[in-house]
Amino acid sequence: MRLTRLAEILGGTLKGEDREITGASTVEESTSTDITFLSNPKYHPKYRDKVASTRAGAVIVGEGLDLTISQIITENPYLSFARVLNILYPEKTRKPGISNLAFVHPDAEVHEGACIYPHVYVGAGARILENCVIYPGCFIGDGTSIGEHTVLYPNVVVYDGCTIGRHCIMHAGVVIGSDGFGFAWDGTQHLKVPQRGTVVIGDHVEIGSNCTIDRAALSSTRIGSDVKMDNLVQIGHNVIIGDHTIIVAQTGISGSARIGKGVVLAGQCGVAGHITIGDGCTAAARTGIASDVPPGKVISGFPAMDHRHWLRVQKVYKDLPELLKRIRELERRLNALAKD
Amino acid sequence: MRLTRLAEILGGTLKGEDREITGASTVEESTSTDITFLSNPKYHPKYRDKVASTRAGAVIVGEGLDLTISQIITENPYLSFARVLNILYPEKTRKPGISNLAFVHPDAEVHEGACIYPHVYVGAGARILENCVIYPGCFIGDGTSIGEHTVLYPNVVVYDGCTIGRHCIMHAGVVIGSDGFGFAWDGTQHLKVPQRGTVVIGDHVEIGSNCTIDRAALSSTRIGSDVKMDNLVQIGHNVIIGDHTIIVAQTGISGSARIGKGVVLAGQCGVAGHITIGDGCTAAARTGIASDVPPGKVISGFPAMDHRHWLRVQKVYKDLPELLKRIRELERRLNALAKD
Amino acid sequence: MRLTRLAEILGGTLKGEDREITGASTVEESTSTDITFLSNPKYHPKYRDKVASTRAGAVIVGEGLDLTISQIITENPYLSFARVLNILYPEKTRKPGISNLAFVHPDAEVHEGACIYPHVYVGAGARILENCVIYPGCFIGDGTSIGEHTVLYPNVVVYDGCTIGRHCIMHAGVVIGSDGFGFAWDGTQHLKVPQRGTVVIGDHVEIGSNCTIDRAALSSTRIGSDVKMDNLVQIGHNVIIGDHTIIVAQTGISGSARIGKGVVLAGQCGVAGHITIGDGCTAAARTGIASDVPPGKVISGFPAMDHRHWLRVQKVYKDLPELLKRIRELERRLNALAKD
Repeated sequence: MRLTRLAEILGGTLKGEDREITGASTVEESTSTDITFLSNPKYHPKYRDKVASTRAGAVIVGEGLDLTISQIITENPYLSFARVLNILYPEKTRKPGISNLAFVHPDAEVHEGACIYPHVYVGAGARILENCVIYPGCFIGDGTSIGEHTVLYPNVVVYDGCTIGRHCIMHAGVVIGSDGFGFAWDGTQHLKVPQRGTVVIGDHVEIGSNCTIDRAALSSTRIGSDVKMDNLVQIGHNVIIGDHTIIVAQTGISGSARIGKGVVLAGQCGVAGHITIGDGCTAAARTGIASDVPPGKVISGFPAMDHRHWLRVQKVYKDLPELLKRIRELERRLNALAKD
Repeated sequence: MRLTRLAEILGGTLKGEDREITGASTVEESTSTDITFLSNPKYHPKYRDKVASTRAGAVIVGEGLDLTISQIITENPYLSFARVLNILYPEKTRKPGISNLAFVHPDAEVHEGACIYPHVYVGAGARILENCVIYPGCFIGDGTSIGEHTVLYPNVVVYDGCTIGRHCIMHAGVVIGSDGFGFAWDGTQHLKVPQRGTVVIGDHVEIGSNCTIDRAALSSTRIGSDVKMDNLVQIGHNVIIGDHTIIVAQTGISGSARIGKGVVLAGQCGVAGHITIGDGCTAAARTGIASDVPPGKVISGFPAMDHRHWLRVQKVYKDLPELLKRIRELERRLNALAKD
Repeated sequence: MRLTRLAEILGGTLKGEDREITGASTVEESTSTDITFLSNPKYHPKYRDKVASTRAGAVIVGEGLDLTISQIITENPYLSFARVLNILYPEKTRKPGISNLAFVHPDAEVHEGACIYPHVYVGAGARILENCVIYPGCFIGDGTSIGEHTVLYPNVVVYDGCTIGRHCIMHAGVVIGSDGFGFAWDGTQHLKVPQRGTVVIGDHVEIGSNCTIDRAALSSTRIGSDVKMDNLVQIGHNVIIGDHTIIVAQTGISGSARIGKGVVLAGQCGVAGHITIGDGCTAAARTGIASDVPPGKVISGFPAMDHRHWLRVQKVYKDLPELLKRIRELERRLNALAKD
């Protein structure tokens, strides 16, 4: 594809020579037929220096740089590059049909345009809609429904009676609908509180490898549309997550928490049960959130506090031994004064 | 079922009109034929307000409330509600038999009352006892034994030579008996320390999705009876866990640690290797436990300390920038005094 | 095997009676035909007391102890014991061949000396080399290559186009090559950034149960040789990990981080994206690393700092309420002085 055509698709401006591009790669590994990109140089200054020595045929940038190679200037180079990748490397298509090594219950409904790999199990009353791809080792429980164009990578388990929307991607080893963690002490042992609810997942949701999403005790655990989850995330029973929310790896959300829309929880965060995090909040990595957070807040630390306040707290925290010395010195001087 | 009959079973008192109940649901979603419950209002005050507007046919409460709807008053409403759920929604029963899509080694022993789903692997010398349910994709290693009435949800892996007790529930993706993490540096590379021990799990144990429990180097990793583990918990080799202990999601326990009976480790805790946590201890979420804890202690923080002390520490911690200011002010005043 | 022969193999010295040893066990559980070991008593003093009462036939020690039982004295008893275990309990060998319950694509290449269990899926163009053991439920994607003598325990998933070296061990539920976490906001929703790179894993790598290793956006996520990972570790896209590095359970490494050679990251650490950790660094459990670390550093805490400094910080941190009191007392005395 010619750069003029790419610039047109991206709504960007070509600066420099027009040429043919056949691939996309990193700044370091690109060759003369590749296009690469330079993200916001404010955040990643070290990449800016590298771009000067790239052998790429072209680079997507946010503002024209003083370089000899061709540049496509767009407002959001990362977004533009994502679009280029989608054009140059389209998603592999899978042949529809049901493998004869799969088990599909006679009462299940599998669309003829779906692809069911070997060693898949589809339970009674389950529904697999058009263009779904169900990779080997997946388990679709009784009465569970998988929306159009959804891909389940290998060994995904969806328990009975759950609902997954359209255009979702569930990575390998994801477990959806396992029992919420509920027990009542009866005086001699823990009585299991049956988890009779379900999980409902919206459209365009992507869930990372080996995440676990528990079914509700009653009612539903609900994941909104366009939610994106990284790997090894834990979602407790009856949690509700709003649309467009992003949850980074190894974060855990306790039962009955409500996470708003457009929230970002960075890696290894923890959210306590029964609390509410407002729309548009951002929690930095490892934030431990134990109480309600109003919309739009940026928080850090454990217990969670305003991010800028936390930065100040951390500065003093690292100097605590010095602080103690200054207090001792004050005490010494005051004692000396008192003696006079 | 009539409320009078339910009250009788629960050992509670009916207040208000007797009526027929056919289901159970949340305070918000119940309809007139449902029963719901109100847990300890001290812990969850927001649910108390909601109960006034419930459309439920009845509510289980700890003390009689001034409401028009029928109430069953019991000592422990949460426990009573768990019992009601077990009555109204009994566990699905599974037809016994071995799927012809499963692989069962000729030297394995599978009870005729067990249910083996498609794509299960049962190794040589393995024993699957009465009423076990082994869901698709499970792997039962050579010589491993699964006790009566135990359920393994899909894709559970139990390595060779492990023992799981009766009435256990292993959720999807659980791994039991993988090698403990042991290596010895030989001067040029890490030599693997063979993990020749096993895992022994008691009765009535429930283990959450994608948990990992390593086999011992020698001897056994031991999980007591009535232990309940949430999702994504990591148990290192040679760990010993006492009966009735509860371990919440994403907690990790390092090798050779001993956890007593009736311990509660909340979410995202970490326990160092070779330490002992006494019976009846409780660790709040995210506690990092690096040394022995005597029985009955309630701890928090990292490093772990008495929970009430930690609460005081956290208060000062959040005010560290203010503290620094006060020290600077003291220094300024003292310097001024000294100049006089 | 006689102790004289064992001492010879280990390059150690026998002290006490020569005798026949048939097994190896713990200090507590050994019987008279077992050999046991005593690791560095500095680190584990409680084991030293136990060795006096062991019923073992012999013990491997670092220095001769005043005991009646036979001792083999070597420089590194833990390493020697690992060698003894490898001699006494050799790894089980698996019969080569492809199960007729497995699915192997006609365009895949499986060495005749490899062992493919039931319910395995091997994609088009995949290569499984000599002496590989692929346990039930594993998925080997199209074009993926598995080196000689590598073992994949049950339900391991390796996505398309990845490369795993020789003599590796992947424990159950490991996911390799799932999509890195990359999205670009297009104004109304998150656009998926296609992850077109791969994962390349060296030789002698061991990866614990349910770990997740994401494929690169472009180029490769690279795990060096002799890297050892514990369970539930998360590796983001484009991460590079040097040879001999050890990563303990539940640690997470964000995208594009570079971890040097011979690094140790203890349990539950977190590493931010795009940073570099130098060769030979050690991070204590739960360290949160947000910026570059020079080679050889020992670090702790969050944010990460020099380990010895952190120990001093923690001491003051635990005494914060006391510190506040001392400041109040200083203020009171200074106010009193000022009044005079």
